[in-house]
Amino acid sequence: MNRYTIANIPGDGIGREVLPAGVRVLSAVAQRCGFALEFRDFDWSCETYLATGKMMPDDGLTRLADHDAIFLGAVGYPGVPDHVSLWGLLLPIRREFDQYVNLRPVRLLPGIRSPLRDKSTGDIDFWVVRENSEGEYSRIGGRTGTGEDEIVIQQAVFTRRGTDRILRYAFDFARKLGRPHVTSATKSNGLYHSMPFWDERFAAIGAEYPEIATDQYHIDILAARFVMSPERFDVVVGSNLFGDILSDLGPGVTGTIAVAPSANLNPPRRFPSMFEPVHGSAPDIAGQGIANPIGQIWSGAMMLDHLGEAEAAAMVLAAIEAVLLDPQADLTPDLGGDGSTADLTRQILEKL
Amino acid sequence: MNRYTIANIPGDGIGREVLPAGVRVLSAVAQRCGFALEFRDFDWSCETYLATGKMMPDDGLTRLADHDAIFLGAVGYPGVPDHVSLWGLLLPIRREFDQYVNLRPVRLLPGIRSPLRDKSTGDIDFWVVRENSEGEYSRIGGRTGTGEDEIVIQQAVFTRRGTDRILRYAFDFARKLGRPHVTSATKSNGLYHSMPFWDERFAAIGAEYPEIATDQYHIDILAARFVMSPERFDVVVGSNLFGDILSDLGPGVTGTIAVAPSANLNPPRRFPSMFEPVHGSAPDIAGQGIANPIGQIWSGAMMLDHLGEAEAAAMVLAAIEAVLLDPQADLTPDLGGDGSTADLTRQILEKL
Ligand SMILES: CC(C)[C@H](C(=O)O)[C@@H](O)C(=O)O
Ligand SMILES: CC(C)[C@H](C(=O)O)[C@@H](O)C(=O)O
Repeated sequence: MNRYTIANIPGDGIGREVLPAGVRVLSAVAQRCGFALEFRDFDWSCETYLATGKMMPDDGLTRLADHDAIFLGAVGYPGVPDHVSLWGLLLPIRREFDQYVNLRPVRLLPGIRSPLRDKSTGDIDFWVVRENSEGEYSRIGGRTGTGEDEIVIQQAVFTRRGTDRILRYAFDFARKLGRPHVTSATKSNGLYHSMPFWDERFAAIGAEYPEIATDQYHIDILAARFVMSPERFDVVVGSNLFGDILSDLGPGVTGTIAVAPSANLNPPRRFPSMFEPVHGSAPDIAGQGIANPIGQIWSGAMMLDHLGEAEAAAMVLAAIEAVLLDPQADLTPDLGGDGSTADLTRQILEKL
Repeated sequence: MNRYTIANIPGDGIGREVLPAGVRVLSAVAQRCGFALEFRDFDWSCETYLATGKMMPDDGLTRLADHDAIFLGAVGYPGVPDHVSLWGLLLPIRREFDQYVNLRPVRLLPGIRSPLRDKSTGDIDFWVVRENSEGEYSRIGGRTGTGEDEIVIQQAVFTRRGTDRILRYAFDFARKLGRPHVTSATKSNGLYHSMPFWDERFAAIGAEYPEIATDQYHIDILAARFVMSPERFDVVVGSNLFGDILSDLGPGVTGTIAVAPSANLNPPRRFPSMFEPVHGSAPDIAGQGIANPIGQIWSGAMMLDHLGEAEAAAMVLAAIEAVLLDPQADLTPDLGGDGSTADLTRQILEKL
C-alpha cells in the first residue's frame, strides 16, 4: 500500500477551519482508493509569532523537509504585519523548497455564476503558471534618509535560470494539456530592465517549442482581457507579481475566489511541494464556521495528483462538481447558500 | 478672449487618426464658448526614431515647455522596442514635467454594455489616481553575468515626497468630489520594502483627513474586486505599476478601453500637463480609419477642464454621451457599429 506523509499547517483564521475539512475528504478518498495518508500537524501561525517572536521554530524547514507534501490553510492575521507573517512562513517554504512553480486553474465551474455575462461552464478554462521563487518578491532593498527626505528602494531579481525554468514549465505544461498556446505577461514598456529580459527569454524558450503558439500582453491590458475575452487563454505565464495578480483576477472572473486551489511545485521533487487555497485567512469571517472549504479540498486534489494518485484526485474533483450541480445542496454563504463549512464538507463526502 | 497653446503629439498608429478628431471637436467647442486654442504639431514618433535614432530631438522637452498643455495620441510601434519608444518620449515628458498624477475615470457610460452582468449606467463610477513619476517604472538596474548565469536587477524607488504628494492628491480629490472614501492598492505581504512604506504613508496622510474613510487591499485581491464589486469604489490610489494595471482593468470592466481618457497632471501647474487616451497605438487596426476617437476626445475634455474651461469640458462630455445614447448613431466597430473615425467624430460635432 502506498503511504504518504503530509505536513499540515492550518495557519490562521479560516485556515484552521478549512484545513480539517480538507483532511477529512482526503482521508476518505485514500481509504476508498487503497493508499494511506499520514497527516502531521504543525501549529505555526501568527499566534506562534505573537508568543515567540517567530512564525515557525528555527528548525521549521528541516522538520518539514522529510514529508511528501505540505498542506497549508492560510497565513496572516491582524496584529501581525503581513510582510512579517508571510516572510516568516509561507515565502521561506516556497523558496527553501524551491517550489518555483505556482500553478492555478481558472475554470468556470458548473453551478457557479460568473460575474461576466454570456459566459457559461466550459467557456473559461485555462491555467496560470506563476514564477514562485524570485522576481519582484524580494527582501533586497531598504530605506535611507530621514523625514521628508526618506527614500525606499525595492529591488527585483530575475535570474536567467529562474526565468527559463518557469517558461519551460509553462510550455511543457501546455504540451501535456494538449493546449498548444502560451501567453506571456509582460510590462517591458515601463519596467526597463526586468521585463525586456523576460520577453527575450520567452522568445528564446518559445523557439524550442515550435508547435506551440505564443502571444504576449502588457500586464495592464492583459488584466483587462481577462475580463473582456477570458475564453482566449490556455496557459498564461507570468512573473511572481504578475502571476499573483492574474491568478486572483482569474478566479474573480469565474466567481470562484473562495473555491480556487493552488499548487506550489518543486518539479524535480527534491523537496516537498505545498498545496493551499487561493483565498487568505479572512479574519472577517473566521470563527463562524461558514468558510467555504472547497478551495482547500480542491488543493488537496491537486496534492493527490502530484503524489501520483490521479484517480483519487479526479474523484475528489468530481465530488466537488456534483455538489455544486446539486440543486438541493446546502452551500456556504459566499456561494449564496446558508450552509456551514461542516455541511458542505459532509455533502462532498457523501458524493465521493 | 482666453487663449491657450496646445502641443499636439499624434505619435504612432491610431494616434495619428484619433488626435485630429480630438482637435476638431475641441476647436468647435472653443469657438462656441469664446476661447481660442492654438495647436502646434510635433511629429515625434517611432518613425522619427527609425530615421534619427531618437524619439524626439534633444531640445524636445524645452520646445514643449512653453505650452499650456500637451495633447498626445499614442506612442509605440512594431519594429521599435516598447521600452525604447516609451522611455524616449512618453515617460520623459511625464517625469521632466513632474506630471506626478495620472488620473483616470472608470465609469459605465450610457449606451455601453459592460462585460459584467447586472450592472448598468451609474453602478460603476469611480476614479483611479495613479502615481506617475517614480516607483516601479525605473531605469535603475541592469544585467550582470553571462549565459546561464545572467541575472537582471530592476530597482523601484519610492520617495517619501513622491508618495505623500500622490496620497494627498487622492484625498483632496475625494474631498473635492464629495465622495469621502479612498482605497489604497498595496502588496505589503510580498514586496518587503516598498509596500509596507506605502501603507505607512497611506495611514499617516489619511490621518490628516479624518472625515474620509479609508481601506486597502493587496493588488491581487483588489483586481478581483474590480470585477466582483466595482460599485464599492470612489477613489482608488495606487503606485505607478498598480495604478497602471487598475486603470486599464477598470475600463475593461466597464467595456470602455477604447473610450477611456487619461490626464497626466502637474498639479502646481509649473509645467504643462498632458492628456492622452488610455488605449495604445493599436497597430492591428491602424490605417483603416476605424479607430474610436472617443478616448482622445474625452481626454480633450479633461484638458479643457484643467485649463479652466469647465463648461466647455462638460459640453464635450455631454455630446459624447448623447451620441452613445442615440440608437441611430453610427458607432465604430469596437462599439459594435460599422462607422468610421470620421463618422463618429461628425456625430459628436453635431451633438455639440
Ligand atoms: C505605454 C505605457 C508605458 C503606459 C504606462 O504603462 O504608463 C500606458 O500603459 C499607460 O498606462 O499610459
Ligand atoms: C499571501 C501572499 C504573500 C501570497 C502571494 O502574494 O504570493 C498570496 O497572495 C498568494 O497568491 O499565494
